[in-house]
Amino acid sequence: MPFSRIFVVNGPNLNLLGQREPGIYGAKTLADIAADLVERAAGRVELEFRQSNHEGDLVGYIHEAGLEGAGVILNAGAYTHTSIALADAIKAAHARVVEVHLSNVHAREAFRHHSYLSPVCVGVIAGFGDRSYHLALEALLEMQS
Amino acid sequence: MPFSRIFVVNGPNLNLLGQREPGIYGAKTLADIAADLVERAAGRVELEFRQSNHEGDLVGYIHEAGLEGAGVILNAGAYTHTSIALADAIKAAHARVVEVHLSNVHAREAFRHHSYLSPVCVGVIAGFGDRSYHLALEALLEMQS
Amino acid sequence: MPFSRIFVVNGPNLNLLGQREPGIYGAKTLADIAADLVERAAGRVELEFRQSNHEGDLVGYIHEAGLEGAGVILNAGAYTHTSIALADAIKAAHARVVEVHLSNVHAREAFRHHSYLSPVCVGVIAGFGDRSYHLALEALLEMQS
Amino acid sequence: MPFSRIFVVNGPNLNLLGQREPGIYGAKTLADIAADLVERAAGRVELEFRQSNHEGDLVGYIHEAGLEGAGVILNAGAYTHTSIALADAIKAAHARVVEVHLSNVHAREAFRHHSYLSPVCVGVIAGFGDRSYHLALEALLEMQS
Amino acid sequence: MPFSRIFVVNGPNLNLLGQREPGIYGAKTLADIAADLVERAAGRVELEFRQSNHEGDLVGYIHEAGLEGAGVILNAGAYTHTSIALADAIKAAHARVVEVHLSNVHAREAFRHHSYLSPVCVGVIAGFGDRSYHLALEALLEMQS
Amino acid sequence: MPFSRIFVVNGPNLNLLGQREPGIYGAKTLADIAADLVERAAGRVELEFRQSNHEGDLVGYIHEAGLEGAGVILNAGAYTHTSIALADAIKAAHARVVEVHLSNVHAREAFRHHSYLSPVCVGVIAGFGDRSYHLALEALLEMQS
Amino acid sequence: MPFSRIFVVNGPNLNLLGQREPGIYGAKTLADIAADLVERAAGRVELEFRQSNHEGDLVGYIHEAGLEGAGVILNAGAYTHTSIALADAIKAAHARVVEVHLSNVHAREAFRHHSYLSPVCVGVIAGFGDRSYHLALEALLEMQS
Amino acid sequence: MPFSRIFVVNGPNLNLLGQREPGIYGAKTLADIAADLVERAAGRVELEFRQSNHEGDLVGYIHEAGLEGAGVILNAGAYTHTSIALADAIKAAHARVVEVHLSNVHAREAFRHHSYLSPVCVGVIAGFGDRSYHLALEALLEMQS
Amino acid sequence: MPFSRIFVVNGPNLNLLGQREPGIYGAKTLADIAADLVERAAGRVELEFRQSNHEGDLVGYIHEAGLEGAGVILNAGAYTHTSIALADAIKAAHARVVEVHLSNVHAREAFRHHSYLSPVCVGVIAGFGDRSYHLALEALLEMQS
Amino acid sequence: MPFSRIFVVNGPNLNLLGQREPGIYGAKTLADIAADLVERAAGRVELEFRQSNHEGDLVGYIHEAGLEGAGVILNAGAYTHTSIALADAIKAAHARVVEVHLSNVHAREAFRHHSYLSPVCVGVIAGFGDRSYHLALEALLEMQS
Amino acid sequence: MPFSRIFVVNGPNLNLLGQREPGIYGAKTLADIAADLVERAAGRVELEFRQSNHEGDLVGYIHEAGLEGAGVILNAGAYTHTSIALADAIKAAHARVVEVHLSNVHAREAFRHHSYLSPVCVGVIAGFGDRSYHLALEALLEMQS
Amino acid sequence: MPFSRIFVVNGPNLNLLGQREPGIYGAKTLADIAADLVERAAGRVELEFRQSNHEGDLVGYIHEAGLEGAGVILNAGAYTHTSIALADAIKAAHARVVEVHLSNVHAREAFRHHSYLSPVCVGVIAGFGDRSYHLALEALLEMQS
Repeated sequence: MPFSRIFVVNGPNLNLLGQREPGIYGAKTLADIAADLVERAAGRVELEFRQSNHEGDLVGYIHEAGLEGAGVILNAGAYTHTSIALADAIKAAHARVVEVHLSNVHAREAFRHHSYLSPVCVGVIAGFGDRSYHLALEALLEMQS
Repeated sequence: MPFSRIFVVNGPNLNLLGQREPGIYGAKTLADIAADLVERAAGRVELEFRQSNHEGDLVGYIHEAGLEGAGVILNAGAYTHTSIALADAIKAAHARVVEVHLSNVHAREAFRHHSYLSPVCVGVIAGFGDRSYHLALEALLEMQS
Repeated sequence: MPFSRIFVVNGPNLNLLGQREPGIYGAKTLADIAADLVERAAGRVELEFRQSNHEGDLVGYIHEAGLEGAGVILNAGAYTHTSIALADAIKAAHARVVEVHLSNVHAREAFRHHSYLSPVCVGVIAGFGDRSYHLALEALLEMQS
Repeated sequence: MPFSRIFVVNGPNLNLLGQREPGIYGAKTLADIAADLVERAAGRVELEFRQSNHEGDLVGYIHEAGLEGAGVILNAGAYTHTSIALADAIKAAHARVVEVHLSNVHAREAFRHHSYLSPVCVGVIAGFGDRSYHLALEALLEMQS
Repeated sequence: MPFSRIFVVNGPNLNLLGQREPGIYGAKTLADIAADLVERAAGRVELEFRQSNHEGDLVGYIHEAGLEGAGVILNAGAYTHTSIALADAIKAAHARVVEVHLSNVHAREAFRHHSYLSPVCVGVIAGFGDRSYHLALEALLEMQS
Repeated sequence: MPFSRIFVVNGPNLNLLGQREPGIYGAKTLADIAADLVERAAGRVELEFRQSNHEGDLVGYIHEAGLEGAGVILNAGAYTHTSIALADAIKAAHARVVEVHLSNVHAREAFRHHSYLSPVCVGVIAGFGDRSYHLALEALLEMQS
Repeated sequence: MPFSRIFVVNGPNLNLLGQREPGIYGAKTLADIAADLVERAAGRVELEFRQSNHEGDLVGYIHEAGLEGAGVILNAGAYTHTSIALADAIKAAHARVVEVHLSNVHAREAFRHHSYLSPVCVGVIAGFGDRSYHLALEALLEMQS
Repeated sequence: MPFSRIFVVNGPNLNLLGQREPGIYGAKTLADIAADLVERAAGRVELEFRQSNHEGDLVGYIHEAGLEGAGVILNAGAYTHTSIALADAIKAAHARVVEVHLSNVHAREAFRHHSYLSPVCVGVIAGFGDRSYHLALEALLEMQS
Repeated sequence: MPFSRIFVVNGPNLNLLGQREPGIYGAKTLADIAADLVERAAGRVELEFRQSNHEGDLVGYIHEAGLEGAGVILNAGAYTHTSIALADAIKAAHARVVEVHLSNVHAREAFRHHSYLSPVCVGVIAGFGDRSYHLALEALLEMQS
Repeated sequence: MPFSRIFVVNGPNLNLLGQREPGIYGAKTLADIAADLVERAAGRVELEFRQSNHEGDLVGYIHEAGLEGAGVILNAGAYTHTSIALADAIKAAHARVVEVHLSNVHAREAFRHHSYLSPVCVGVIAGFGDRSYHLALEALLEMQS
Repeated sequence: MPFSRIFVVNGPNLNLLGQREPGIYGAKTLADIAADLVERAAGRVELEFRQSNHEGDLVGYIHEAGLEGAGVILNAGAYTHTSIALADAIKAAHARVVEVHLSNVHAREAFRHHSYLSPVCVGVIAGFGDRSYHLALEALLEMQS
Repeated sequence: MPFSRIFVVNGPNLNLLGQREPGIYGAKTLADIAADLVERAAGRVELEFRQSNHEGDLVGYIHEAGLEGAGVILNAGAYTHTSIALADAIKAAHARVVEVHLSNVHAREAFRHHSYLSPVCVGVIAGFGDRSYHLALEALLEMQS
């Protein structure tokens, strides 16, 4: 059964998108990205947007999505590299998660090359700017919940 | 003087206990574990239960317990392996803490083999499922606050 | 200007696809994947398929694609993790490459977690089986050559 | 243009200052330190005090300071050593931050020798007890916002 | 079926207990600890005590316990950190072992932080002085052989 | 069913055997070794000899052997230590491979102590000069294909 | 001059062979293996069998074999990975030793990938179950003492 | 008792200040910095300036300062990262030293992140250009000798 | 006896020279470099040029040069850092090789700082652009074959 | 009070002294060394000689020496590098031990550069052949028991 | 503009050249090498020779050469591997330096494989004995100062 | 031939002996130690004393001693752990050196556990306070120059 709802979960500092190092992250705000995604998803799946700078909130969003059987597009920002709690949440809630990154994290600082999340996610999409979210949406729409 | 109150502090994802990988963590919920502990503690010590997915909340609970001279049974979940702040809290508040784990963390992924908390705890009990909490309760009841 | 041609380059052992560990890599052969991609690309872009078990051949394909300004979907298999020559080829030929993997390489052996190619690719898509190729195709079709 | 406002941001466990290992951290409370700073700053710059045990709150305070062009005196406590999110916040908000520590962190445990924050701060002052804050204040007052 | 017999196996240098660094290990001798355990176990389970400074003897005791289906309380002392043979013995003899330590090994030298035994033991109890043995006894008495 | 055919696959530089560091590798040429093996195998199994300095060729030979259900005696030379592609080929083609080395690789440079191939081979025989091949032949003749 | 006597030396836990993890080590006991070897060696060489769980005993057996000029088939079990003393014994007694393993140690835990013995042995044979001993016997019979 | 004399000790290459990478180190020469410091110190403390490219000279200056009870502002340049002798000198002479750096060493090459001196200095001030010296002067003037 | 023939062997991606990152590698093509070398060598030694993107081909060229007693100027490109096979080839064929690099590899990525080839080459010349080849030619002309 | 008795304890393989690699260890047997020591000690201190290939025996000898207040000259052979149990024995028995080595262990294999014993011994003497024992005797005779 | 003057700077122990391990360094003294260089340079460039065992002196020579725009042939001996100060000097003085070594440092001890100087030098020439200096001279004569 | 002269060479900070951390280094000054040694050596060998805080001076003293065939007692202080130049000097000058340390360096900070000098010295004596020098004198007097 395809997903009827998809959570788009964004982590720390992504609330500043558009102001923050546009050379790396692009000029679109998080609201712009959300609007684009809503348009693409229209009539296909319901979207639920969440953002927080708190690791604990992200853990909770994953629980919520997992428990109701929703898919997840997750850009966990810096917590990608430091949060075992978030990885545990994905496993604990049996959430189906696509990990996305705006930038190509592998072309940046060494501490961004390791992800605690990747091993428990379905897959990873990185480096396509806001189009990473579009591709993740398409990927989830072809999956079974 | 023995402890008159003991905090039972649980960290991230433990709110999902019973749903989460029962092969590893057992079928009991956190409420079941609490009920068992209350029964065992009856007439011997007062118990105070706390759970949070936020590292900062756990830091606060430790402060609270330490300042009132209570003992602590702490299952910090994934923060065991990543939180220096929690270790600092134990030292700062002079809290007397027994670190517990449901599973035998040493038989799992390598990143679960290191604990920032162990060096500042009184002792560690791991691998006995929910009985880890029972043993920790007995251990604290024989200690001086 | 969008790409008028896209190379789909597959590395060592991918010629065995469909026979090889279907639990990890799926049941489709490389020919099946090519047929799907041709159908999806029809009328939008011309596709050129290459496969080799030789690192040196892959280096040559990247040169060829880069010099004619074509985009590249690259599944370099095991050379992902060992070939600096292939990474140099991408830079030397100014090729625009999307790195794909059928499986979620981060959930497998530790030596598959590092990619010499990622830092010089546009982006990475991993874990979606043969749909990783479809997503890469879409990603390239939205890019400028 | 000099700073018209400076945030003094304190991280986890610093709310216990004065009670916590006075041999290392000194006998002054955070309120004592604030009072001293207010006196020193009087007529020169406005001060804004924040403390939290939550990494996410600290991220938010940095955003706030950066967006209004204020300077920051930051004692991130244990998050100094574990928080990439906080380092990203400093870069994302273009905040001008002086990292301070009460103790000489380099004379303590090895895991306190690495700071994720230092590379994105203006400078570092460590080891002078509460005078570290005074020196940081003087340093910021001589800088341009 | 509960255990009808439990081996209490002590490794190198524990024969000196009571004379050796009482600040770390306490003032009780091994005989004192045995007497306490016998009293606690009276009428519940039969205890069998072994001590040796030889790694090979400890391997043999584990074989003996495993083959007759007894439980084991094991304080392997320094062999905890160096003996793969002892870990192999536990697996080979299908012994059900609780690893105990008098001191909190994680608060001591780095080479005491790794245990070859923990991954093949049922669980670990460390840091409670001679009470570590009492807790291990209780833990084994609630287990199935 | 026993093997009806066995591939003897030799990797880079082994074409120089007999000329190359005879103190380490012995005075026999690859042709001498082949002749000995043919004599030993006569009437028991058919042998197929391959040698290449190209990693990609070796990958292909393994595919060929695996697909026809033949056994493999593999001396991959330096690719033993660098080729994940060759290890993948063994798994992908379900080839039954005995890894051989003329010299005792563990008594040489540190970079020769690790083999990517060993974990996916049936077994390893090293240090017996050209007799390593004889022993491998005997080992394969006692195995089921 | 060929060997007139060969020691077959087995280390810790191998006395449990046949009971221990038969999926890894096979169903034969050490006595079964000895009987097979005696049959194969009949009329060719005299065999001497030794087994001990004590590192010091193994050191002594190697001395004994080396001093009388006998060959050695050595399965040192876990001491393979931890005993420098045993490696020194081989060198000190000028013993000619073939290191054998029942299982393919390279396909198991990382700490089994390093052998202190390999650099001072003639060669290594691993992964062929009890046939590893047969192959070692053949290898030694073709060597000069 | 406050310091009556303070040594300002500069290490290798600092004699080139003003000519050397002004983007990193600023345009002031060492003489300019000295003049500023003299002006700030006037009537408060006597300053003594030393510079050498020799590690052994710096060791001697620290001895001299320590033996007469003077404070030290020390910019040891590259010796910060390589000189155990200089760290020993600080301890041996009981010198009270403030370590200063013009640049934020933590934002530069990895080998500049470790300081042998920091653990034996009173504190560290880095990143404020020549103002690092001013802040160090203020810090020493508030200390007891 | 001086060399009568010298092989100039170039590895992967060097066929693109002149097009590839001219800021690092210079504007000359491989043909330009060859022409210069021919002119310099005229009347002194015969030159033989080879280039390939295949590791196996380079192994073969080294064999060829070594067996006929020619000298070798070798720019192995990325295989410098990954090919043990090429290092073995140099030893196996007793080739006299000067390792050259256009760029100063030590000023680039960390993975370019290690060379498998250097320990088996006569010497190394790096960082002088196409003049590295000229210097290598001079060096070989002064050597004995 | 000076020592009235000194144990001379030798570890594994030292029973072979005189036969074993004389280039490294010298031609004297352990009996020769003992005779020399007895002569030197005559009328000054009583000597007690022990040798064993068993780690557990050495642990016991240290206990014995420590409990009677004797000094110890200890050449633990290979156990120097692997035995935490022996180090613990020295601490547990409050033994006063001089660690000796015939050879200069620092000029040999890397795994001989680390000693678990050195940190708990009074001092170390290495590299003087059998004279290392003489120097240790002199050292102990000048110490207080 | 070509260099009008070139410094030939030699570091520690090179004053002993000719006496020191001639198998590695050759039989020529430093004076012999200087005489050869003077002859080669005659009429083309002026040479200035310096040698010191002091790191600080070498720093000074580099300053001197850099400030007058001279080229440098630098054999820093052991300081190559330990001196950040010397690397800083090259950058600070904008000196144009060719790093030379008599021996092939990469074929020697591991601690000689890393050079702090290489990343800030123009290029490196190693392994050609005293001809390394000749080649460096030719290289500098073709460069612009 | 026995040594007719012995250099006693002391490195950085040893000029402060007696003032510096007497708990670790003892209360004797370097002059006291020299006087004791002179008395012990009287009529047996001539002693030559040197001390410097400069690495380069120590290199020179070793050259001097080596060239005249004198023995050396060397306490290189902190340069023990950082100076490859000093190790090279010992080899270059063929000096016969006994490395001494007052304290047991292995019981101190980890960075004091590695010595560049040990592998090129005759032997090492550490931990006996000023008696380390006496023992070294005896050791050298029994050696051949």
